[in-house]
Amino acid sequence: MTNSNPPKGMRDLTPKEVELRNFVVNTVLGVYKKFGFSQIETPCVEDINLLCSGEGGENEKMLFKILKRGEKLNLNVIQNENDLVDLGLRYDLTVPLCRFYARNKAILPQNFKVIQIGSVWRAERQQKGRFRQFTQCDIDIIGVPNVIAEIELILATSEALIEVGFKNFKVRISDRRILENLAGYCGFEKSVYGKVFIILDKLDKIGLTGVKEELENSLFPQASIDKFIDIVRQGTERNLTVEGIKIILPEIDEKVLTDLNFVMDAVTKQAGSRYSIALDLSLVRGMGYYTGQIFEIEAENYKSSIAGGGRYDKMIGKILEGHEDIPACGFSIGFERVISILEEQNFQIPKTEKKIALLYDKNSSIDLLLSKAEELRGEGNIVSIEIKGKHVGKQLDRLAEQGFNSYAIFTEGQPVEIKPLNKLKAEG
Amino acid sequence: MTNSNPPKGMRDLTPKEVELRNFVVNTVLGVYKKFGFSQIETPCVEDINLLCSGEGGENEKMLFKILKRGEKLNLNVIQNENDLVDLGLRYDLTVPLCRFYARNKAILPQNFKVIQIGSVWRAERQQKGRFRQFTQCDIDIIGVPNVIAEIELILATSEALIEVGFKNFKVRISDRRILENLAGYCGFEKSVYGKVFIILDKLDKIGLTGVKEELENSLFPQASIDKFIDIVRQGTERNLTVEGIKIILPEIDEKVLTDLNFVMDAVTKQAGSRYSIALDLSLVRGMGYYTGQIFEIEAENYKSSIAGGGRYDKMIGKILEGHEDIPACGFSIGFERVISILEEQNFQIPKTEKKIALLYDKNSSIDLLLSKAEELRGEGNIVSIEIKGKHVGKQLDRLAEQGFNSYAIFTEGQPVEIKPLNKLKAEG
Repeated sequence: MTNSNPPKGMRDLTPKEVELRNFVVNTVLGVYKKFGFSQIETPCVEDINLLCSGEGGENEKMLFKILKRGEKLNLNVIQNENDLVDLGLRYDLTVPLCRFYARNKAILPQNFKVIQIGSVWRAERQQKGRFRQFTQCDIDIIGVPNVIAEIELILATSEALIEVGFKNFKVRISDRRILENLAGYCGFEKSVYGKVFIILDKLDKIGLTGVKEELENSLFPQASIDKFIDIVRQGTERNLTVEGIKIILPEIDEKVLTDLNFVMDAVTKQAGSRYSIALDLSLVRGMGYYTGQIFEIEAENYKSSIAGGGRYDKMIGKILEGHEDIPACGFSIGFERVISILEEQNFQIPKTEKKIALLYDKNSSIDLLLSKAEELRGEGNIVSIEIKGKHVGKQLDRLAEQGFNSYAIFTEGQPVEIKPLNKLKAEG
Repeated sequence: MTNSNPPKGMRDLTPKEVELRNFVVNTVLGVYKKFGFSQIETPCVEDINLLCSGEGGENEKMLFKILKRGEKLNLNVIQNENDLVDLGLRYDLTVPLCRFYARNKAILPQNFKVIQIGSVWRAERQQKGRFRQFTQCDIDIIGVPNVIAEIELILATSEALIEVGFKNFKVRISDRRILENLAGYCGFEKSVYGKVFIILDKLDKIGLTGVKEELENSLFPQASIDKFIDIVRQGTERNLTVEGIKIILPEIDEKVLTDLNFVMDAVTKQAGSRYSIALDLSLVRGMGYYTGQIFEIEAENYKSSIAGGGRYDKMIGKILEGHEDIPACGFSIGFERVISILEEQNFQIPKTEKKIALLYDKNSSIDLLLSKAEELRGEGNIVSIEIKGKHVGKQLDRLAEQGFNSYAIFTEGQPVEIKPLNKLKAEG
């Protein structure tokens, strides 16, 4: 074993990285709790059948599967992969949440407002910013059929992002039923809606011309494509209003539009000048399980989304036989994206405490040294005792690099004087 | 998919359980940071070769192995399990730490004081209190060859346990070299030391008679067994001192005993009347990788250990070819045991904030309702808006069960009056 790297696509996190992640987790958790959400945890490992129910979409193809153990594994009768495995690593937190809900329904509150923060795994092809183990940070409301759920999710997520340090971001909102109505209105067959939406979802990256080209490459009827592209152009070129949609799609259920207006009004009032919400016809959200409103948050000056979610009333019932539709709605912060933006901005965690390196030499009385350290800790400081090296200047530089902002030299019989530790050299 | 249970031996954690675990993690983390430790994280998944290096001992037999993916998996040429897998779930945090250290040595401080808190997986046979996914909570000091490291680990762990709520616990300490010297003195062959220690480790459970019986069943020389049992009896019947060991084992390296005295003196002075430390000849610690002092903490009124650790100077070098001995010492809190003791004691997390259920009816102005909720949150309260049910009394009972301690009914145009929510019914 000479290779000391972590597995492909996975990361070791340094103290500085863990500190930032903990800060974000605790900040977000604090806000979500204030909104009345409470946190659950499910195992990282789930039954292979649950993970392959179909509701995981493309993620199911990126599953890390776990070998059967003991007598259950018989290498002589292997027909295919499924004979070999019984468990897998979860690829999201939504599928496990559905299992959790189905199992505990009887003892859960009627309006179940839940937080989940945890690692998920996907065997993705390697690319910048993508990892095979990464953190998801979700809130979900199960049991609320009306859009008060959507409003609460959007408000809580927005407040959490503000608390973490984001400003002037934009909530984009739409409804899956508008997309479906639009596709139908343009004459696409119902069976290809999914494919059309996946192509539309690339609008940000490939532009309207690119979307048109891909639709044409898929050999959909040209009349449908032209109509579709025309409407999407209208929708993106000017600020599309709910009234505008009603003109384009007169057959859409009135309630879909009233609900959108209701959510946008409520969020706009609570947002004030801090952030904004706007209808976006080109918003798709990748997962096929959405049934109602969908939303994303786009950070100021960054094109990519830092949060996304929507309503998924059919998923729990589909995954778990015998359950009917159960109202459910979720919003997920793109945790890794948030972290990487904060790192790019060289975000500093607000700190007040002193971090003191207490240097001693080997002739020091260990008892007095330890008591002094404990005394300083009692005053609220971080104190690490460190044996004094031969080259104190060099040693202090290294300690400053590690985040120490103060030091003291412990000499028996003399008062301990705490001095600021200058980071100049380390930063220069 | 009708089965909504988590995989065998794994758990769903409810809001109440997660809250307690977060409280313990944050409390322990706070104390460790004050001692100058900093937290790292490694992936939950590691290379199969690292996990099967031999240093994991019995844990390697309980490995969850992950199937190769894509072209790497060829079902036609399988000779054995190893052809099928390339990764595994970590069974502890020490083996990954060694990899992390070897990889990052050049940029790490000379005295690396590190915290790790995370899940590990072992395919153990099911029994009460044992789980196949559980949390470990370790601190380690790498690079410090002297017992200042042992002292810091013991003090930090003890302070963390005190902060969590434990009192009057007992630190048991010994040294692997004493055990080895003792086994040699009794005439056991060096190759069977490990087996002898594994049997001695059961002393708590099977008593001295049981240990004797098992040694005899292993067909070790009767003279060695008798001598060994006699000394262990002497060691456990009265308070064994370091001087006592010197009499029993005159050939032991003086430094081993001086170091033990030094650590016990220093810890005793810092402990005051809060906890105690004592030499314990029967202390073994399961893992074979320990090279020096070993220690455990035993909670008051509970026989089982709530923390354990020791020095392992050879492990990093063994796991990672080309590395020489590297001084390393660690202490691990038995996180799951600590949690289960706190739960048994019906431990209540200290709380001050109000948790308010803000009830509204469907005719309420949502804007005013949301603004009121935000205002109450701004005052430091947890506020969950909840639609008013038909049977408010029943609803309030259920909310009380979920931890709400206050409620208010939102009626437009009237001041919101926050009332205490009585838990009487829920508890009765």
